Amino acid sequence: MTAPFDLTTVDDLLSTTRAVRKRLDLDRAVPDDVILECIRLSQQAPTGSNMQNWRWLVIRDADTRLGLAELYRSAGGEYLAAAAETASEGQIKRVMSSANYLAENLEKVPVHVIPCAKGRLTSENSVGDWSGMMGSIYPAIWSFQLALRSRGLGSCLTTLHLGHEAKAAELLGIPDDVMQIALLPVAYTKGTDFKPADRPPVERIVHVDRWGNKPG
Amino acid sequence: MTAPFDLTTVDDLLSTTRAVRKRLDLDRAVPDDVILECIRLSQQAPTGSNMQNWRWLVIRDADTRLGLAELYRSAGGEYLAAAAETASEGQIKRVMSSANYLAENLEKVPVHVIPCAKGRLTSENSVGDWSGMMGSIYPAIWSFQLALRSRGLGSCLTTLHLGHEAKAAELLGIPDDVMQIALLPVAYTKGTDFKPADRPPVERIVHVDRWGNKPG
Repeated sequence: MTAPFDLTTVDDLLSTTRAVRKRLDLDRAVPDDVILECIRLSQQAPTGSNMQNWRWLVIRDADTRLGLAELYRSAGGEYLAAAAETASEGQIKRVMSSANYLAENLEKVPVHVIPCAKGRLTSENSVGDWSGMMGSIYPAIWSFQLALRSRGLGSCLTTLHLGHEAKAAELLGIPDDVMQIALLPVAYTKGTDFKPADRPPVERIVHVDRWGNKPG
Repeated sequence: MTAPFDLTTVDDLLSTTRAVRKRLDLDRAVPDDVILECIRLSQQAPTGSNMQNWRWLVIRDADTRLGLAELYRSAGGEYLAAAAETASEGQIKRVMSSANYLAENLEKVPVHVIPCAKGRLTSENSVGDWSGMMGSIYPAIWSFQLALRSRGLGSCLTTLHLGHEAKAAELLGIPDDVMQIALLPVAYTKGTDFKPADRPPVERIVHVDRWGNKPG
């Protein structure tokens, strides 16, 4: 049987949708339609018990973006400071430098997108509850990011601002029974020639039948 | 600028990757290679701080699949009984009937896949911690499911067995510092003609700049 999809396109999409920070084009306008189109595609992802409890906040207002950027930098203080001081080499160093760049420029990214889930979990909830809830929103978020990439835009999943979730909810008027999940800065990318990342051989992270049994 | 990807392929993939339960082909063998290839593609998804803390357990052994199916049915008891008795109509009723079918046939699905995250969160952790952790594994899980779909296979994200996570860890030899995230039954699908699902207009789930401001 032949595959039902063009695997060159699919594999390229799944292999080159990177967390984009430095290559976000801060000067190019992003039309409303492309954001709505990508969220519309994300609605096709499955949710637990088909609850479809996703909600999306799309922020363009400059003052609101500045407010979010300030909350982000405040919440991310320690992490970002550690990131700036890290003396590590290679891939990790690039990620940390890129994370700092994003934090410093967050208000300049033309669109901030905050996916939310209706409902709220607490410390009473189990890993099953958390995974069920997050598993009903993250496939949609990743579909949204893949759809953006296919159209020449980029984004980056961040969760730092959740350290000040209540303040962000106040800024944005989000009700108590809606939980913010992440903040994605969205823009067109400078060029679209992203490459697959270096990854260890898949055999290193796969176990067969029982932990410790390696494939092949 | 033209889009860097063939949008017919991308949008079709993102719109027709359903949670497959009744249409899993229980009689067709699944080669090892296709599973490893899809996990290899999932490794290209981003992770927080590039930690790449994903681990995958691929279960083919029949006794182990039966053990997992029993744990799944035991953990899902109340949910599945409620699902069976639901008198609701339409889409929800179909989902519940389908969930029951999967529970009853889980050991017959040729491959069970359990994505895991190295690390363990507890009730001390915040929504930001949970979202950061889940946001580092669920994009990979959804990439894995999209890659399967593109190759004629189907899967379904389930979290019911996590109600007995410790027992499943014992069955599978998973160390304490590795957290199971989900269980995905994987098989070829009976036919590949999946359609987009009915969804409400995107405007209903999107707010602009501030909660309550609708688009357009």
